[in-house]
Amino acid sequence: MFAIGVVAQFEAAHRLRGDFGPASRLHGHTYRVEVEVAGPQLNDDGTLFDLGLLKAWVDEAVGELNYQNLDVLPAFAQRNSTAEEVARFLRETLAPRLHGKGLRMLTVRVWESPQAYAACQWELL
Amino acid sequence: MFAIGVVAQFEAAHRLRGDFGPASRLHGHTYRVEVEVAGPQLNDDGTLFDLGLLKAWVDEAVGELNYQNLDVLPAFAQRNSTAEEVARFLRETLAPRLHGKGLRMLTVRVWESPQAYAACQWELL
Amino acid sequence: MFAIGVVAQFEAAHRLRGDFGPASRLHGHTYRVEVEVAGPQLNDDGTLFDLGLLKAWVDEAVGELNYQNLDVLPAFAQRNSTAEEVARFLRETLAPRLHGKGLRMLTVRVWESPQAYAACQWELL
Amino acid sequence: MFAIGVVAQFEAAHRLRGDFGPASRLHGHTYRVEVEVAGPQLNDDGTLFDLGLLKAWVDEAVGELNYQNLDVLPAFAQRNSTAEEVARFLRETLAPRLHGKGLRMLTVRVWESPQAYAACQWELL
Amino acid sequence: MFAIGVVAQFEAAHRLRGDFGPASRLHGHTYRVEVEVAGPQLNDDGTLFDLGLLKAWVDEAVGELNYQNLDVLPAFAQRNSTAEEVARFLRETLAPRLHGKGLRMLTVRVWESPQAYAACQWELL
Amino acid sequence: MFAIGVVAQFEAAHRLRGDFGPASRLHGHTYRVEVEVAGPQLNDDGTLFDLGLLKAWVDEAVGELNYQNLDVLPAFAQRNSTAEEVARFLRETLAPRLHGKGLRMLTVRVWESPQAYAACQWELL
Repeated sequence: MFAIGVVAQFEAAHRLRGDFGPASRLHGHTYRVEVEVAGPQLNDDGTLFDLGLLKAWVDEAVGELNYQNLDVLPAFAQRNSTAEEVARFLRETLAPRLHGKGLRMLTVRVWESPQAYAACQWELL
Repeated sequence: MFAIGVVAQFEAAHRLRGDFGPASRLHGHTYRVEVEVAGPQLNDDGTLFDLGLLKAWVDEAVGELNYQNLDVLPAFAQRNSTAEEVARFLRETLAPRLHGKGLRMLTVRVWESPQAYAACQWELL
Repeated sequence: MFAIGVVAQFEAAHRLRGDFGPASRLHGHTYRVEVEVAGPQLNDDGTLFDLGLLKAWVDEAVGELNYQNLDVLPAFAQRNSTAEEVARFLRETLAPRLHGKGLRMLTVRVWESPQAYAACQWELL
Repeated sequence: MFAIGVVAQFEAAHRLRGDFGPASRLHGHTYRVEVEVAGPQLNDDGTLFDLGLLKAWVDEAVGELNYQNLDVLPAFAQRNSTAEEVARFLRETLAPRLHGKGLRMLTVRVWESPQAYAACQWELL
Repeated sequence: MFAIGVVAQFEAAHRLRGDFGPASRLHGHTYRVEVEVAGPQLNDDGTLFDLGLLKAWVDEAVGELNYQNLDVLPAFAQRNSTAEEVARFLRETLAPRLHGKGLRMLTVRVWESPQAYAACQWELL
Repeated sequence: MFAIGVVAQFEAAHRLRGDFGPASRLHGHTYRVEVEVAGPQLNDDGTLFDLGLLKAWVDEAVGELNYQNLDVLPAFAQRNSTAEEVARFLRETLAPRLHGKGLRMLTVRVWESPQAYAACQWELL
């Protein structure tokens, strides 16, 4: 099994709805995003998938969140802007572009700070 | 599958019993600890598990090792204070609190330095 | 000349008043704070100044900003919440406690992200 | 399941053959290499495998690439020097030494920069 | 005294002319570039200088080196591509744009790897 | 003014004599050491000083402390093993080799952890 991964970043404000202590107040983070795709074999050119294209797609998805208040974005109108939901949003944004490319698995990890992250993993067809 | 992870740190002395070259001498490390829990679905509030609570439990477990000589602690009376055993100790300390919470897997990674780590993974019920 | 330094962190939302492009929108950062004090000689116990005390004072000052919207805090009522002003605020908060301790210089560096910082330096008497 | 991992580094030039935009030009990277082995149980001395030995083997394998132009090395005569192929080369170099040691899985991750990596995973017998 | 700093990065091949051991062979690095400007006072908007503009200028200067073989660039036709000379090249590129802006000092630091850097400092008028 | 710097690391146990709270207990750290030398001009080969030689000297000095209990070493028989004193020890070890080389300033920074450091600066003749 092979995998490639890219790292991106965005700067955003948010608050959590519910009883999350200080995280219920408006605050912000420098989010670090790690996106990995995995598949069983390399192409003839020695790549699993075009790393530059993956980076461009991740940057595009992350760009929608950069310098924003997450809680006023349509993506988080119906859900809390937890790191888990940010990861799920990025997976939902990226997965359609990654289907049918010989890849098996997509993993998105979202660090809210250098000390805490959430991740989600999704099978690709 | 979703996961959340937190990072903690402790400063400890130890030596390895047996023929481990320089590591058989009394020395020390700034240990970096990464703890991840994984499970199949998010709660209604958009969390897999309370990140703050996980961080508090990890900090409590790690606190027992901070500014200590590992080899005089009861936890390491019967076992070598390798990074593998530190990871197992933290897994054993944390796992009982994490059972029955809808989580499936606990992973503990212990970095002895920025260049070397040990990890252990444990299924939660 | 000797120096000691400590690192702290806070998570905050803010926006800049004026024409700062995307930074004029409400957003947030994981701020990394580095505080250094310098002086000409060590005490008899081999310290320039108590590192633990410096860390405690920095954590206290930084704690006022953690999980906050900087722009609604009294500290930023009359000034833009630029990284430069955050650094100046921390210098103003810390300097009074550090005068008369045999130290000569206080430096505060505030990273808004891993790619950008502001710093200020202040002579201590 | 337990695992141990080590980190190494090398500085190399290369270019990609094919249409890879700027990466088709001669350029270079500081490569960060992470090698992990996993197995089901610890030895009596509290180790999964000798961390120092693993580090020495990884450093030896990585040393062949350090301060080199990857594209003139025999290892890359027949294949493009993508990060995926660098990972595969290191896996092929390391795997024979790791068979028959009670280990189950070998993972090699190769970062071309702090923002991009490739990895490959291989079952050990 | 205040300062602001930005971080950039480029991926390049080079070799040193002369007896520099392995560094005399064609190899490469992921270079990390840190550029700082310092001055005595903040503007009315709470900035020392426009951080976004500084970042854009640094990215533009660094972009000329990205995915290149340094030794075939005009900038290094007459000089060895040491980290010191890369720092001097960036200082020479950036300084003209920074004169007359109320700034006093420009510092450029160039990391060839996470373990080694060169820097140069230049007074601005 | 130009400068070059190198980074090294050592793993050591120690305790502080006196009332330093938890730091009075035997514990340990992964120490990160940064050594910088500065001087007014570059040599004809584009270097301030041989980076490889500086790295070798720093590694040799740091090697005396690696995998040791600092408090039983002759270097710390008469002084507390604070980070300030470790920095002073490294400065005293390195400075004699660096005099008369056209360098003006030696700076040694010793991180006890990623959150705390001590540094000392020394004029070279």
